[in-house]
Amino acid sequence: MRAVDLIMDKRAGKELSREAIAFLINGYTAGELPEYQIAAWAMAVFFQGMTPRETADLTEIMLASGARIDLSGLQGPFVDKHSTGGVGDKTSLILAPMAASLGIKDPMMSGRALGHTGGTLDKLDSIPGYRTNLTVQEFRSILAETGYAMTGQTKDIVPADRLLYALRDVTGTVESIPLITASILSKKVAEGADALVLDVKYGSGAFMKDPEEAEKLAKSLVDTGTAMGKRIVALLTDMQEPLGHKMGNFLEIEESFDCLEGKGPADLMEVTLALGAWMAVLGGKAQDTATGRRLCEEALAGGGPRRLFLENLRAQGGDAEQFLALRGTYRSDFTRTLKAEAGGFIAHIDAWNIGHAGVTLGVGRNRIQDPVSPVAGIEFHKKRGDPVSKGDPVMTVWAKDEASLSAALPQIRASVSYSDVPPAKRNLILKEFF
Amino acid sequence: MRAVDLIMDKRAGKELSREAIAFLINGYTAGELPEYQIAAWAMAVFFQGMTPRETADLTEIMLASGARIDLSGLQGPFVDKHSTGGVGDKTSLILAPMAASLGIKDPMMSGRALGHTGGTLDKLDSIPGYRTNLTVQEFRSILAETGYAMTGQTKDIVPADRLLYALRDVTGTVESIPLITASILSKKVAEGADALVLDVKYGSGAFMKDPEEAEKLAKSLVDTGTAMGKRIVALLTDMQEPLGHKMGNFLEIEESFDCLEGKGPADLMEVTLALGAWMAVLGGKAQDTATGRRLCEEALAGGGPRRLFLENLRAQGGDAEQFLALRGTYRSDFTRTLKAEAGGFIAHIDAWNIGHAGVTLGVGRNRIQDPVSPVAGIEFHKKRGDPVSKGDPVMTVWAKDEASLSAALPQIRASVSYSDVPPAKRNLILKEFF
Repeated sequence: MRAVDLIMDKRAGKELSREAIAFLINGYTAGELPEYQIAAWAMAVFFQGMTPRETADLTEIMLASGARIDLSGLQGPFVDKHSTGGVGDKTSLILAPMAASLGIKDPMMSGRALGHTGGTLDKLDSIPGYRTNLTVQEFRSILAETGYAMTGQTKDIVPADRLLYALRDVTGTVESIPLITASILSKKVAEGADALVLDVKYGSGAFMKDPEEAEKLAKSLVDTGTAMGKRIVALLTDMQEPLGHKMGNFLEIEESFDCLEGKGPADLMEVTLALGAWMAVLGGKAQDTATGRRLCEEALAGGGPRRLFLENLRAQGGDAEQFLALRGTYRSDFTRTLKAEAGGFIAHIDAWNIGHAGVTLGVGRNRIQDPVSPVAGIEFHKKRGDPVSKGDPVMTVWAKDEASLSAALPQIRASVSYSDVPPAKRNLILKEFF
Repeated sequence: MRAVDLIMDKRAGKELSREAIAFLINGYTAGELPEYQIAAWAMAVFFQGMTPRETADLTEIMLASGARIDLSGLQGPFVDKHSTGGVGDKTSLILAPMAASLGIKDPMMSGRALGHTGGTLDKLDSIPGYRTNLTVQEFRSILAETGYAMTGQTKDIVPADRLLYALRDVTGTVESIPLITASILSKKVAEGADALVLDVKYGSGAFMKDPEEAEKLAKSLVDTGTAMGKRIVALLTDMQEPLGHKMGNFLEIEESFDCLEGKGPADLMEVTLALGAWMAVLGGKAQDTATGRRLCEEALAGGGPRRLFLENLRAQGGDAEQFLALRGTYRSDFTRTLKAEAGGFIAHIDAWNIGHAGVTLGVGRNRIQDPVSPVAGIEFHKKRGDPVSKGDPVMTVWAKDEASLSAALPQIRASVSYSDVPPAKRNLILKEFF
């Protein structure tokens, strides 16, 4: 088998055999095939796609490139949740303790902020003392003890994806539905979950700008996951505007805790409960999503998720008293309040602009090796549809330093638009695929 | 400027600026951009193409990556000829002395056999003593003295093409019309010709199997060459069957000399005279191709081209007496004659099969570093349309060794088909573009 022939077959739109895909991926991971051949193949895949069979084979071959988290001996069910990434998207931080309170364990391995989207690990790292570099043994014992555990991906989880993603990132081959599918699913399956709830976001603040593309990805994820024997659901959700009232690292931890205390903003709770309802169903706790949603709401009202959040926080190295004391005060000194430039209604707050301004503020990063600030971010006092008078505070902004604050403000201002009439109501949950 | 952004622009079908193309090509040639980014860009070009402006810019940027042969001080006109490659395609060896006898100088830099197509350099190297590694000074003085000179490309001619072609070869990105155009023209312009006659072949023995694709390449070459200020003509010619009666290294030198002595086979002479007529026109020796063809025929009849061939042979290190003595005898000892399996007519001799069998016999090679045999090859006693009786000798085959002979014979046998009625006449010259 020669790599160049396989590249030319894919270039011609042919279906590659499982052996051919294994030859490419395993050869690349072993350092036997050069990056330029894999880059050319990935670009050919971008143009020609992959059949469902090829996508499932690629996922399984990538999965087999590394270790799987061993959850044997622990009591399930294990249901994980994954989002394709957004701005202000903190539902994982709420869902994990909520599901845990229903007896569903979430073995969650997360990523870091990159580009305009936030990263769960960076948010958790903003809690003083909280450790996201657990050993597998710690991960297992915290999962057993508090019902969920949060850590970064270890080096031995799907090394093929780490290599392939880094190459796709610099060769313009990220935006390929089969390659994204295999990247997400190989990691999620390696992490040991029996079932998966996926939040596939579309819109300016999402990876997929176009709902049709996001829908194709959602279907590809569900079809491939199902072919691999996993119970899997994907929700197509709106990411035109930031989710919730807070965007930042500690700010989002804080807002997640607000939600667990029953004080969550409506848009964030709507998406969280839609995902939570499916976690309850896939975890075997509810027959249908209406029942699942009711169980989640009852759990929140009962305080179980709040308690498990603090238990997990302690188990992973944080100090619950200190955390509670930091709420509302753990902020950068470099701050500014933006006021409404017009009266009427907030017509739109653009997620893409807010996400990119967040990178400038210090919430996120453009290069994975750069640091982020725990105390930078934005609090939205008004959101889409809210009535405003000219001069009302619309947002408070915190930056890592004064220069970053000045640099970010024009884009933040440009993210808001006003109208004389209320904007049409957004439908946050567009479709469900299962 | 970031390479990944340029790759994504091309992926999206956008036109890249001259600066962007220079950034990619010069960065790659300087070793500053990694091969995987150029491979991804080349695959994006395969799918999205290039505009005529981009193709001309790429050609000029590649041309500027190296030296140009300095023909100043020599008397022109300088008209070169290039073929996209075929089986038994030896017209350059006939055209160069023929044009020289009309006062047109051909500064010819050629390539080696690769895959199923032969290489002019390998054919010339089969002449004992003949040197194809001339210095620029030798190239100039032989060109002035005998009207033409034949050598390999020096390292400093279009280094960008050498690097890019090697990468395209292993990444499935060879078959891209703008990339082929830039590769051919950058080298031909660097070699110093004022005008170019191109033989763009299509068919099983050609690089382009499909006449429509070959036609696109011919148009792209003419448009780009014209945009660069060169007088340029491309002929679209048939390469379904080997050209002439001899295929091999010394065998093709021999047949070229047969042509110079007025004993050339009809198909080979038809293509040669069509190309030669255009060389006469572009060299300013004829107003039209009918006149150009007549001049070529008269030159051949007068013996000038034969004399210049032997002069060039001596000037480049060969021995004319020894060469003349080797004719008809310089053959491998490992030989077999194939007889007609049926009576009637030769319906087809497939160029692709003959070309690949030639690699097995030792005429060509699959890897550029492999040696070739001067004395391997095939003589066709019968060609398409010839009447045969069962048992008539159809071909004589010579191989570098007995094992290669046995290995090649089945494919050689399979290349011939027979019919009860004469096959339709082939039209060897399909179109002309100028």
